[in-house]
Amino acid sequence: MANFKGHALPGSFFLIVGLWWSVKYPLKYFHHKGLKKNRLSHQQERIEIIEGAVKTLFAVIGILAEQFVPDGPHLHLYHENQWIKLMNWQHSTMYLFFGVSGLMDMLTYLYFHIVPLGLDRVVLAMAVFIEGFLFYFHVHNRPPLDQHIHSLLLFGLFGAAISIFLEVILRDNIVLELFRTSLLILQGTWFWQIGFVLFPPFGRPEWDQKDMNNIMFITMCFCWHYLVALCIVAINYSLVYCFLTRVKRCAEGEIIGIQKLKSDHTYQSALLSGSDEE
Amino acid sequence: MANFKGHALPGSFFLIVGLWWSVKYPLKYFHHKGLKKNRLSHQQERIEIIEGAVKTLFAVIGILAEQFVPDGPHLHLYHENQWIKLMNWQHSTMYLFFGVSGLMDMLTYLYFHIVPLGLDRVVLAMAVFIEGFLFYFHVHNRPPLDQHIHSLLLFGLFGAAISIFLEVILRDNIVLELFRTSLLILQGTWFWQIGFVLFPPFGRPEWDQKDMNNIMFITMCFCWHYLVALCIVAINYSLVYCFLTRVKRCAEGEIIGIQKLKSDHTYQSALLSGSDEE
Amino acid sequence: MANFKGHALPGSFFLIVGLWWSVKYPLKYFHHKGLKKNRLSHQQERIEIIEGAVKTLFAVIGILAEQFVPDGPHLHLYHENQWIKLMNWQHSTMYLFFGVSGLMDMLTYLYFHIVPLGLDRVVLAMAVFIEGFLFYFHVHNRPPLDQHIHSLLLFGLFGAAISIFLEVILRDNIVLELFRTSLLILQGTWFWQIGFVLFPPFGRPEWDQKDMNNIMFITMCFCWHYLVALCIVAINYSLVYCFLTRVKRCAEGEIIGIQKLKSDHTYQSALLSGSDEE
Amino acid sequence: MANFKGHALPGSFFLIVGLWWSVKYPLKYFHHKGLKKNRLSHQQERIEIIEGAVKTLFAVIGILAEQFVPDGPHLHLYHENQWIKLMNWQHSTMYLFFGVSGLMDMLTYLYFHIVPLGLDRVVLAMAVFIEGFLFYFHVHNRPPLDQHIHSLLLFGLFGAAISIFLEVILRDNIVLELFRTSLLILQGTWFWQIGFVLFPPFGRPEWDQKDMNNIMFITMCFCWHYLVALCIVAINYSLVYCFLTRVKRCAEGEIIGIQKLKSDHTYQSALLSGSDEE
Repeated sequence: MANFKGHALPGSFFLIVGLWWSVKYPLKYFHHKGLKKNRLSHQQERIEIIEGAVKTLFAVIGILAEQFVPDGPHLHLYHENQWIKLMNWQHSTMYLFFGVSGLMDMLTYLYFHIVPLGLDRVVLAMAVFIEGFLFYFHVHNRPPLDQHIHSLLLFGLFGAAISIFLEVILRDNIVLELFRTSLLILQGTWFWQIGFVLFPPFGRPEWDQKDMNNIMFITMCFCWHYLVALCIVAINYSLVYCFLTRVKRCAEGEIIGIQKLKSDHTYQSALLSGSDEE
Repeated sequence: MANFKGHALPGSFFLIVGLWWSVKYPLKYFHHKGLKKNRLSHQQERIEIIEGAVKTLFAVIGILAEQFVPDGPHLHLYHENQWIKLMNWQHSTMYLFFGVSGLMDMLTYLYFHIVPLGLDRVVLAMAVFIEGFLFYFHVHNRPPLDQHIHSLLLFGLFGAAISIFLEVILRDNIVLELFRTSLLILQGTWFWQIGFVLFPPFGRPEWDQKDMNNIMFITMCFCWHYLVALCIVAINYSLVYCFLTRVKRCAEGEIIGIQKLKSDHTYQSALLSGSDEE
Repeated sequence: MANFKGHALPGSFFLIVGLWWSVKYPLKYFHHKGLKKNRLSHQQERIEIIEGAVKTLFAVIGILAEQFVPDGPHLHLYHENQWIKLMNWQHSTMYLFFGVSGLMDMLTYLYFHIVPLGLDRVVLAMAVFIEGFLFYFHVHNRPPLDQHIHSLLLFGLFGAAISIFLEVILRDNIVLELFRTSLLILQGTWFWQIGFVLFPPFGRPEWDQKDMNNIMFITMCFCWHYLVALCIVAINYSLVYCFLTRVKRCAEGEIIGIQKLKSDHTYQSALLSGSDEE
Repeated sequence: MANFKGHALPGSFFLIVGLWWSVKYPLKYFHHKGLKKNRLSHQQERIEIIEGAVKTLFAVIGILAEQFVPDGPHLHLYHENQWIKLMNWQHSTMYLFFGVSGLMDMLTYLYFHIVPLGLDRVVLAMAVFIEGFLFYFHVHNRPPLDQHIHSLLLFGLFGAAISIFLEVILRDNIVLELFRTSLLILQGTWFWQIGFVLFPPFGRPEWDQKDMNNIMFITMCFCWHYLVALCIVAINYSLVYCFLTRVKRCAEGEIIGIQKLKSDHTYQSALLSGSDEE
């Protein structure tokens, strides 16, 4: 879907997942740090399963949208010696791999005694790699700016693929998880940027796709997007910390209160028993 | 052997090895998990040695086939200022390295107190790397589609080479083993695909080797092949699990049966001895 | 700032930081080795925080300089359908990321119970990577020598980025830290070299920017710079060792002296008490 | 020195070092395995220091040879607006780094309580990397075969650089050491091959430097060289094993003999004491 919506939709999707991760991973980190153990609780497993299910659902929706939009291929691949709507098919393939990754996530936490840990990360790394792989061969024969703006995405994608593959060995490493989160948010905001540049909405003027200055600006802009992504992750990380600290304080306050009540009660009962003894 | 057979034969070979691995590694994994130990039993060592021998045998057959097909070089390399049948020699070289890798596998398990663990993986990684290396310089001056379809193979090959090299450090890691298996199956099915595209059998029409759409389709098709490879690995993995669970249940059933028999026997003997006591 | 100063200034900055690191890391190494523990003392944490603050300050100064030099963009980015002074904006972006890295260093050591260790290295690796990334797209459409002399920098930058990323896993590894230090000093001296080659000061003759021999010489010169960087690190390392050994010897000498004094005193007091006892 | 000797000399040097390593590392491996400890004995440290000294000596000889051959630069770098004999200077630079690596090896084992382990590997990796780096920019504007035959060397060099860098973390890993050895032998034999191809000795006919078939053959030939290198390493490895086993058996035979003598002596003394007791 080579239009503004076609870039804004996956962008929003990646952004939402990225924001969710930037809350989830700090929560998990502080939770485990407090408990000094490294296993997931049943509740966390349930969250992972739901996340996998949502990912699969979104992927299915993405595939259906790509296939059954009015100018989509409607599941036809080949007709009268011609491939039909290969772009849509490529996008469907990307979604398909994210769907498989979602399924794998679910299987990993549903059948944790059967599926070896790490397979979900391999499949996710492959899904991200294949997105980059298809994008790489996607942008031939296009104007320079279009080609450049899409190929910048590849840095984020291949970086994320390597980082996720590393998680096979270094699972539950908060640094790698936050790095992955920042790259995902980058991807989300960058999709929006692509939409704004290639298909200017609100009747804005077109960009000159061959101007070297535009390409230079876009390169720099990509770095700024990463900075924004870093800031979002940092802000959500500290918000989670503040929230947890407050919750803990309240809980402790209650405990102290209860203990106070208890000790009062003990005192009273002591008094009573004392008066009884008299 | 630039024809359909010349691609179908190695494809079948890789496919068979891949399918075998997709059964072997889950078996090994569940076996070790049940026993909570990490050493290979004598039986498993014997299987590894046989696998190495079969690999070596297949490589020798491959070399002989490449050399002594009617239009092969018949072991002649240079004649009247010209290299003879360099293609066949290159294929022979690829087989040669897989043969050496097979030999190394045998040596590793036959003389496990002499040969350091990990050397077999280095040699296998080098065999895979050299296959990719020769392919890379193999496809110059060919039509675009031919070049592209062969170079896609390189992604699988170099990925596998890196993954196998990692196994030097992380030996017996089920995730890396399954990843390698999936890449091997991909290679097997892709060789068949190359055969079908470049040398259409059954009198089908030729592909236009310069059409950009064909190249785009083939790129996407490569991803689908990987998905199929993932599915095959997943199915075989769960089949092995089901099979092992059933075997275990039967074995336990028998044990319970035997125990029951035993206790009956004890009971009887107790009765008998009781009657004796009377 | 495409002139001699514009290269000499960041060069000096990198050189100073590199020299500082080549003293700091050996000091830390010998300190920890002597104490056989691996945690930072409060004093060392304070040093790290000051280093982060200085880094941030320098980055802010760099940004302000790039923006408010007479021919700078003065924070204007877009005017009358044209990007303004993109070069300066790109340099500002580079400084910006080093500033963020400095901030992250401060946060890591100020709130060490909140911020997970390793994040500072990821952000530093990203800052270095983004410097290389912007340089890579920086030098299009320039004369060959200019392009080559800048792209040699990329080897150092991407090497440093990978090495710093490795420190996420292998934190406080003296070998990686010294390697990083040598690459930073290389960068510092190389910036000076670029200044001398592209903008010869003191009225020296211009270099022929298309002469292949100049390019070959510059390549070799880059290696010599690395050799110089290695030597500087080695010299500072051994100076730190000598200094620490001397300090230790003095301290031990004092202790021995004090002990001597003490024992004399004991002797005297023993004598006195002896005389008292009489 | 662009002639047959100029390739045969470094080739022989690399080959000799490679052969020496293919004996040294298996010896070290079996020695440590037998003793079940992982520290170097004083004798082994002395060997490492001598190796470093020899490496440095060879490097100095190489530099002097490159500088003071009749058509060498005689330490002049720049004369009348022209760089003098840049080729010789580049080769000198390569030797220089190997000399520094030799020095570093000596320092590591002489001052093992000061120099952190792993620095010698980093410097060696950099020496190998810089050899590849200079070769990469060395071969511009040459005929295709010349360019190709030199660039094949880069695969070996960069592979070795990565493998040596890995040894910083995984020091004394026999698999990495043997891999490095095989790559070094490959380099040695390949230098000879380059000499034979580009400067055919004994009045042989010149190679057509633009023939695609020659390039294809050379690529394959490179793989064969690696196979030969693997075989040499394997043969030396097993020879060392056989030698050590025989030595051990002899030593045990002697011990048994001595014990027999001893027990005879005991017997005799027992007899004597027995006779004394009588």
